[in-house]
Amino acid sequence: MDETTAPAISGATRLFAVIGDPVAQVKAPALLNPLFARLGRDAVLFPVHAEPRNFAQVITGLQRTSNVDGLLITVPHKIRACAFADELGRGAAVSGSANAMRREEDGRWRADNFDGQGFVAGLGARGHAPGGKVVRLWGAGGAGRAIAAAVLEAEAAHLLVHDPDRAKREELRGRLEEHWPGRVTAVDSADGTLDCDIAVNATPLGMRPSDPLPFDPKPLGEGTLVADIVMEPRDTPLLRTASAHGLPTLRGHHMLDQQLGLYETFFGLRNQASAEH
Amino acid sequence: MDETTAPAISGATRLFAVIGDPVAQVKAPALLNPLFARLGRDAVLFPVHAEPRNFAQVITGLQRTSNVDGLLITVPHKIRACAFADELGRGAAVSGSANAMRREEDGRWRADNFDGQGFVAGLGARGHAPGGKVVRLWGAGGAGRAIAAAVLEAEAAHLLVHDPDRAKREELRGRLEEHWPGRVTAVDSADGTLDCDIAVNATPLGMRPSDPLPFDPKPLGEGTLVADIVMEPRDTPLLRTASAHGLPTLRGHHMLDQQLGLYETFFGLRNQASAEH
Repeated sequence: MDETTAPAISGATRLFAVIGDPVAQVKAPALLNPLFARLGRDAVLFPVHAEPRNFAQVITGLQRTSNVDGLLITVPHKIRACAFADELGRGAAVSGSANAMRREEDGRWRADNFDGQGFVAGLGARGHAPGGKVVRLWGAGGAGRAIAAAVLEAEAAHLLVHDPDRAKREELRGRLEEHWPGRVTAVDSADGTLDCDIAVNATPLGMRPSDPLPFDPKPLGEGTLVADIVMEPRDTPLLRTASAHGLPTLRGHHMLDQQLGLYETFFGLRNQASAEH
Repeated sequence: MDETTAPAISGATRLFAVIGDPVAQVKAPALLNPLFARLGRDAVLFPVHAEPRNFAQVITGLQRTSNVDGLLITVPHKIRACAFADELGRGAAVSGSANAMRREEDGRWRADNFDGQGFVAGLGARGHAPGGKVVRLWGAGGAGRAIAAAVLEAEAAHLLVHDPDRAKREELRGRLEEHWPGRVTAVDSADGTLDCDIAVNATPLGMRPSDPLPFDPKPLGEGTLVADIVMEPRDTPLLRTASAHGLPTLRGHHMLDQQLGLYETFFGLRNQASAEH
C-alpha cells in the first residue's frame, strides 16, 4: 500500500469541499489538505463537480451534511452562492460574490470572499500594489467582482471594467459606485483603448486550449502588468503573449496562495489547532 | 508535512461516500481508501453524516454531484435509500434495503445490498455456514433484512426474526415468505425461547456504552454461534457476555471485510484498474 496516496480518512474526519464546474483544474485540495496535515487537523477537502442546473441541490446537500464545516466556491457559482448564505462578510457583501462559506456554531452559514484580498496581496508581493494605479479588469463575474472591490479598497486611482455583457458590467459598476463614487467606468470589450498600469483577466478564458485571448496585451504600454487569475495552465496564452512582448506578468496561483492564511482564519483552523495541542 | 495523513486528492479525484447517522464509527474509509490506492484508482471515500431529517437532501445532493461515482449506505438509512435508486439489484430488491449505490453510464442510480452476502461469507469463513441451520436474527432494520434474505438463500433450515416492532418484523416475514415460503417465523422480542444454531444481532445495540444487550446469550445452548454486526467496539458487550459463557462468537467486521471484493465488482474497480495498467 502506497501511503502517500492513501488518505488517512476515518468516520470522524471533518469535511470541506470546493464546488465548481469544471472542477478537475482546482488547486484547493493540493493546498488545503497539506495545510490540514501541518496543523494536525483531522479534515479533508475534496472537489465537488456541480453543473449549474444541479448547483442548488448540491450546495444544499453539503450544507445539510452535519460533518461538513466549510465550502469553497469557484467558477461559475460564486454569485449564486450568496443566496445560500445566512449572513455575508464584507468581501461577499460588497462584491455580491462568495468564494468561502463556513458553518457557524448555531448552524447558520456565513459567506465571504477572499479572492480580492488574495489578488491584491499577490500584486503587492510582486511589487505592483494597486494604490494610485489605473486598473483594467476583464470579466464582471464572481472573481472579477471581488477583485474590483479589493483594488478600489486598496486605493486604485481608477478601475475600468470590461465585459461583453452590458447588464453584468453595469451592475458591477453600480455596486462599486455606492462605495467608491466616481472611480469606476464600465467599458464595452470592443473598446480599443487599453491605457492602464495593471491589466487583469478575471474571465475563465485560457482554461481551455481553444479559448480566445480575453484581450490582446500587445497594445499595452511598456511596463504594464498583465495579471491572470486562470491557474491551469500556469502560463496561459495571455501571459505567454504578454511575456513575449516584454510585459511583466502575474500568474493566477498567487491569488489562491495568498488566500491560505485568510482561509486559516476564516475556518478557525489556527485557533482550534493551537487549542488542541 | 506528514504525507501519510495528507490525502493526495486533486480536482480530478473521483468521489465515493458512506452515509450514516452516526458516522464517526464507520470503517469503510479505512478499508476502501487503501483499496483504491492498491488498485491505482484516483478516488477517495469520505464519511457523510446525514441526520434522518436531512437524508433526502443529502443523498440527492450527492447523486447530483457529477464526480460522485458511488455511495455506501449505513444505519439508519438503508431502507429509505431504496427510494433514491432508479433500479434495484436482487440483494436490494429482496430485502427492501440498500447498502451500495452506483451511478450507471446513462446517469441512472443502481442500488444493491451486499450485507447479507458479506455476513454469510463471514459465517462460512469461520466454519459456520448457515445451510441446514436454525438462525435467530434480532433486528428487522436495513442490515437485518439483508442478512435474513441471505441466510435463507444459503439454505438455512429456518429463520426466526425478533423485533419489538410488530409491523417491522411482520413486513419482513411477509417479504421473505414470497421467496422462501414456510421457513420464516416472526417473534416478539419478549419470547423467552432461544433454541437455535446461530444467533445474530442485527440491531445497532452495542454501539453506545449505555445500550442494553440486544438479547441475553446466556440461555443459548452449547455451541450456538453468537454473531454481531456492530463493528465498534470490536468486542461488543453481547460478544463478551457470550464468550464468557463459552459460546463461539463472530465479530462485526467480518461482514464488511467480506464485502470488499463485492464492492470491487459492483463499483467496477477491478476491471477499470486492469484496463488502465
